[in-house]
Amino acid sequence: MSRVFNFSAGPAALPEPVLEQVADELLDWHGAGCGVMEMSHRGKAFTSILERAEADLRDLMAIPGDYRVLFLQGGATQQFAQIPMNLLAGGAADYLVTGSWSKKAHQEAQKMAQAIGGSVRLAGSTEPDGFRRLLREEEIRIGEDAVYAHLCTNETIHGVELAEAERLPNTKAPLVADMSSHILSRPVDVSAFGMIYAGAQKNIGPSGLVLAIVREDLLDRAWHGTPAVMNYRVMAEHGSMLNTPPTFSIYVAGLVFQWLKAQGGLTAMEAVNREKAELLYGFIDGCAFYRCDVERASRSRMNVPFRLCDESLQDAFLAEAEAAQLVQLKGHKSVGGMRASIYNAMPLAGVRALVDFMDHFARRHG
Amino acid sequence: MSRVFNFSAGPAALPEPVLEQVADELLDWHGAGCGVMEMSHRGKAFTSILERAEADLRDLMAIPGDYRVLFLQGGATQQFAQIPMNLLAGGAADYLVTGSWSKKAHQEAQKMAQAIGGSVRLAGSTEPDGFRRLLREEEIRIGEDAVYAHLCTNETIHGVELAEAERLPNTKAPLVADMSSHILSRPVDVSAFGMIYAGAQKNIGPSGLVLAIVREDLLDRAWHGTPAVMNYRVMAEHGSMLNTPPTFSIYVAGLVFQWLKAQGGLTAMEAVNREKAELLYGFIDGCAFYRCDVERASRSRMNVPFRLCDESLQDAFLAEAEAAQLVQLKGHKSVGGMRASIYNAMPLAGVRALVDFMDHFARRHG
Repeated sequence: MSRVFNFSAGPAALPEPVLEQVADELLDWHGAGCGVMEMSHRGKAFTSILERAEADLRDLMAIPGDYRVLFLQGGATQQFAQIPMNLLAGGAADYLVTGSWSKKAHQEAQKMAQAIGGSVRLAGSTEPDGFRRLLREEEIRIGEDAVYAHLCTNETIHGVELAEAERLPNTKAPLVADMSSHILSRPVDVSAFGMIYAGAQKNIGPSGLVLAIVREDLLDRAWHGTPAVMNYRVMAEHGSMLNTPPTFSIYVAGLVFQWLKAQGGLTAMEAVNREKAELLYGFIDGCAFYRCDVERASRSRMNVPFRLCDESLQDAFLAEAEAAQLVQLKGHKSVGGMRASIYNAMPLAGVRALVDFMDHFARRHG
Repeated sequence: MSRVFNFSAGPAALPEPVLEQVADELLDWHGAGCGVMEMSHRGKAFTSILERAEADLRDLMAIPGDYRVLFLQGGATQQFAQIPMNLLAGGAADYLVTGSWSKKAHQEAQKMAQAIGGSVRLAGSTEPDGFRRLLREEEIRIGEDAVYAHLCTNETIHGVELAEAERLPNTKAPLVADMSSHILSRPVDVSAFGMIYAGAQKNIGPSGLVLAIVREDLLDRAWHGTPAVMNYRVMAEHGSMLNTPPTFSIYVAGLVFQWLKAQGGLTAMEAVNREKAELLYGFIDGCAFYRCDVERASRSRMNVPFRLCDESLQDAFLAEAEAAQLVQLKGHKSVGGMRASIYNAMPLAGVRALVDFMDHFARRHG
């Protein structure tokens, strides 16, 4: 078996020790005589897995006691509708649009508001600038009456990240943040948000699982037609087990949380992630053969979009990279170019290998 | 490693050869250098997995060309709300209630109808009889105006199954059937239904995945507020990939479909499943120590609820069974007693071992 360096934006590479443990335990978890996939979600074994996963996540992210952790389904895309269902309550919400994902969230919320009442407004958008930067403070309009303000703190496709607390919008409204593609990559002050959510398939585990961290006071505003399984209060009361949860995905996520703790937690991850990102952006900025169009202060440490200055060489770049065991570097079809997603599970050695390859490719073709 | 005989109602036992293959491929699928969990859902590898899974399912169930196969999330419980969202269109639907699951489906649909318009009616219920049988023809009232009629063809908790075409309700309305706990256990005439759906965690694969098989003409009736990811037409148009699907669960389901084909398909499965059920019910009916309260013509081949005539022996029964490597036999808390779920992955040898154990237990304690 030969493992590649996998730069997929998601589903993305998972830590090898986690995968090895999953494979080892697949037919027999801790002597239970069956695997986690085959266990009743109401039994002691799975209950212990779920409880430990939540406890480890709370520990990693220092989640305050007045926040509930929900293990949900349907991806962040389902949350785009579920958030206004649960939080809008006939009021007005403001959406910051800084890339494809926050734009989709805004559109889906508008559709929901039209159907169930309430209004969804655009607080500001960098689309005219090609989503190459964060919104500046003076561009953001959040109403005094906003029941929440929504933002995506890391745009997976455009590579724009908001991670510093001082760059969060200045508002009294609860902030609702899609952190799908950078959650757990560095410490975050959970108390600055009303709700944080994240699809699992980047930094958490298998696709199909969504984490939601919701402040208690936001649990009781759901539209009366909200399906039970999509109602945050109902799911909180049932410990995410109103119905059968995605048990295996929760188990894998739990192992990822254990792995993160063993690495030293989010402060240690941040140090490695900073080093990886500085190495890659530093090389790109220093080499005339490549370029990154994202404004420096807005660049994501997780998703690094870049271009070959001579775009006719793209196919050759991708083919040679793949031959060098560096895979999934093609940019999203909506933006073109290349993208290296360097989540927690991507070791520094993988970024070094990519930079070395890019350097050699530039020398050969430059 | 010692594998037990696992009678869990779900998540349930999976075929060992499937689990062995999953474990083998977990870090490296077919030389890709990464596992299925880590692959982009848009890449060639995963696309081929999804396409083969659908083709094999179509083959196994002989699904006609005018039905679309959707790989969804949220469990059957989310479908309870999603079905009226997609199909009610301000009209009236009739629900047959024959156990806990169809009752929940009816309640959730009523709530949805009140929120979005339309009406959800009770076509008949066996609740006064303790859900011990199917509805009789003369008890079922489906309106001429019904836009669909909903039923659960196998009640996992109460062990009531409707599998013979001649027992289906007599109506022109499209039948919408929750087949979660007996799908793929025997051939079914898909064309008798407007829609079939099933949570994966019994006969298909890991929890978190839901299959929906929907007739083309039912795809265009969705309520305007239906979230995109919950809209059958939108999901059909996107090949179940509007957003990231639960890729790993789809992969495991696909391996289960391949395993079923290797066993000889659903006709062969039906023969084994009939033999298993006849063995267990035959023993229970012939032994005064145990009883099954479900009417004979309504009994499920998949979920066999039974009781010890002396219920004070229940704890001893469960403890001794577990010591004999026969696990998860406790009945659902809402009905008590015992339940043996004997899905496709339970071999005849497992049912034989259970019957032998029950026989010995009766002799020791009778």
